[in-house]
Amino acid sequence: MAGTDAERDLLAEVARLGELAREIQDSASSLISKTWNEEQTLRQRAIALDSDLRKLETAARKAALDPSISDKLNEGLCRIRCLLSDGDVAPLLPSKNNGRFLKMFLGPINVRATRKEVQLKVKEEYNSYRDRTAVLFLLFPSTLLILRSWIWNGCLPALPVQLYQAWLLFLYTSLALRENILRVNGSDIRPWWIYHHYCAIVMALVSLTWEIKGQPDCANKQRGVQLFLVWAIMQGVAMLLQNRYQRQRLYTRIALGKAKRMDVVWGETAGVEGQLWLLCPILFILQGFEAYVGMLLLQTALIGVVSAWQVIVCGILLVVMAVGNFINTVQTLMAKSKFKAKMKRSKSKQDMDQFLSTDSR
Amino acid sequence: MAGTDAERDLLAEVARLGELAREIQDSASSLISKTWNEEQTLRQRAIALDSDLRKLETAARKAALDPSISDKLNEGLCRIRCLLSDGDVAPLLPSKNNGRFLKMFLGPINVRATRKEVQLKVKEEYNSYRDRTAVLFLLFPSTLLILRSWIWNGCLPALPVQLYQAWLLFLYTSLALRENILRVNGSDIRPWWIYHHYCAIVMALVSLTWEIKGQPDCANKQRGVQLFLVWAIMQGVAMLLQNRYQRQRLYTRIALGKAKRMDVVWGETAGVEGQLWLLCPILFILQGFEAYVGMLLLQTALIGVVSAWQVIVCGILLVVMAVGNFINTVQTLMAKSKFKAKMKRSKSKQDMDQFLSTDSR
Repeated sequence: MAGTDAERDLLAEVARLGELAREIQDSASSLISKTWNEEQTLRQRAIALDSDLRKLETAARKAALDPSISDKLNEGLCRIRCLLSDGDVAPLLPSKNNGRFLKMFLGPINVRATRKEVQLKVKEEYNSYRDRTAVLFLLFPSTLLILRSWIWNGCLPALPVQLYQAWLLFLYTSLALRENILRVNGSDIRPWWIYHHYCAIVMALVSLTWEIKGQPDCANKQRGVQLFLVWAIMQGVAMLLQNRYQRQRLYTRIALGKAKRMDVVWGETAGVEGQLWLLCPILFILQGFEAYVGMLLLQTALIGVVSAWQVIVCGILLVVMAVGNFINTVQTLMAKSKFKAKMKRSKSKQDMDQFLSTDSR
Repeated sequence: MAGTDAERDLLAEVARLGELAREIQDSASSLISKTWNEEQTLRQRAIALDSDLRKLETAARKAALDPSISDKLNEGLCRIRCLLSDGDVAPLLPSKNNGRFLKMFLGPINVRATRKEVQLKVKEEYNSYRDRTAVLFLLFPSTLLILRSWIWNGCLPALPVQLYQAWLLFLYTSLALRENILRVNGSDIRPWWIYHHYCAIVMALVSLTWEIKGQPDCANKQRGVQLFLVWAIMQGVAMLLQNRYQRQRLYTRIALGKAKRMDVVWGETAGVEGQLWLLCPILFILQGFEAYVGMLLLQTALIGVVSAWQVIVCGILLVVMAVGNFINTVQTLMAKSKFKAKMKRSKSKQDMDQFLSTDSR
């Protein structure tokens, strides 16, 4: 084949790079299949261990044991469970499914991180995302209410309120997506908090279609919106308090080996001891106020001041969320006091440590 | 330590499982770090190859070459590029960033699949998702328009229309998320189609806040909504045609080595030859109609029949989308005819095949 020297050089270089590309491609293929096989072997061992562990857990529950022995047994079982669900083996065990919500939005993509550092980075990012949104959650409705009495003469214009509602829709959607992703990555977030966000998504969507009526008789027509904004401000304060103490508590629990690092202690029972007595009343007041706003909305719909279907739906959703939040908070508090009683029963911490050090030899 | 036989057995079993768990954990850790190191070595080789390839591509562009040599060179370069971006090496090379949109909704989670089969499954699922939505895209507005003249006496009630708008909002959000995920996984989807979906998201959101007014003078007030529904039906037909022929074309291009399997040939130039002459006029008519609906909305806002800001924003967005779609369709058609001219110039297919077989020895 004729050609100048430059042309021959270029063709030779293409041939060389082609050769190299095939070589690298072959190495990559063999690395992938080799890793896959080794993972497969480890996976089978991990699954066998997991099933043995389940059997032992059942046996331990059924047997009538001396309390001190039982506590030691449970501690040991808990440690193994933590290793399996939080260690480097975790990505090999079959995971929770993506769930309908993630599939609906993202399709069948895998959102599970294989490396622990990445999972923890996702968790950290989720926490700081909640911090940032809590501030906005407080600022947005406060600004609207301040401007209302300061500039807008007691009558909110539609656009800013609708922008706020669109932001709420985005916020709750992204929180629900992120929490589903955390769940797939091994977090034990209580399902209710995710359902709660689904309700909030529906409410934000419904409130967007809800016409913000103006003068005349503006104060009366906008009563629902106004109450909702006040509730949102209280929610923002509670979120800030929760976020602040939740991290502290999670770190304490991790240090005690009671929690995995991927756990989300969303809201309601956050706070290390002292703060719990500050948080709990605030949370219960908030839930009561949420239910009250819901009832007020239903009332305005029934006596016919505003007769849109949106008012009824929002009212029902608020009441449902308040009741659900209340039940879940009480459940978590009960689990907490149960755990404390158990801790008191076990004779001393040293005793436990002794067992653990024997166990880990 | 005292205890019954059963208690001793249980404690022994816990110790055994604890030992086993630590063993498996250690193997998993070492497998992860070993694989990571080997990947690192391969990654460096792949990056070096990538940079050499770039240099050669620049040199090939600059050099004044004989057309036949130039074609052969380009064919060779294209093959290597395909291997790098579509083979098992691809996951090792630094990928496109997640982008702001994905980060906003999902946080910093990795959505890139390492194994090729998974990537292709995601692609396939995206295609079948588009098939399913195209049917709904056709059914939803048709049903609304049929019921309007059949049951609702020419005046659409608000709720069904708002449900449709909420569905559009969900659909466009999930399409934008999925396309961003495909892009991270190496698809070369044209950025405009993703921007187009961002515009559509904003429009769906705005239209939700847009009050659907009823009697009196319903036909006049609902003119915008009605036109929008007619446009949506045409869009549905075009989507069905596009989806059907797009796959066929993609498979042809993959067979010819012109496309990677992750490519998305979204819409506008879909169709294997024959169908292109059917699709193109439909697409241009659709774009014209889209711009027309946008102008009509702007007109109704200006002459004051309906004077909400939503009408103006939707009008502007429709015109922007129509113009963008038109420009992108024309650009793709031009790229297509350029490619054809080039193909004609290269003397024969056999000649090319000969070079390729030399190259792949």
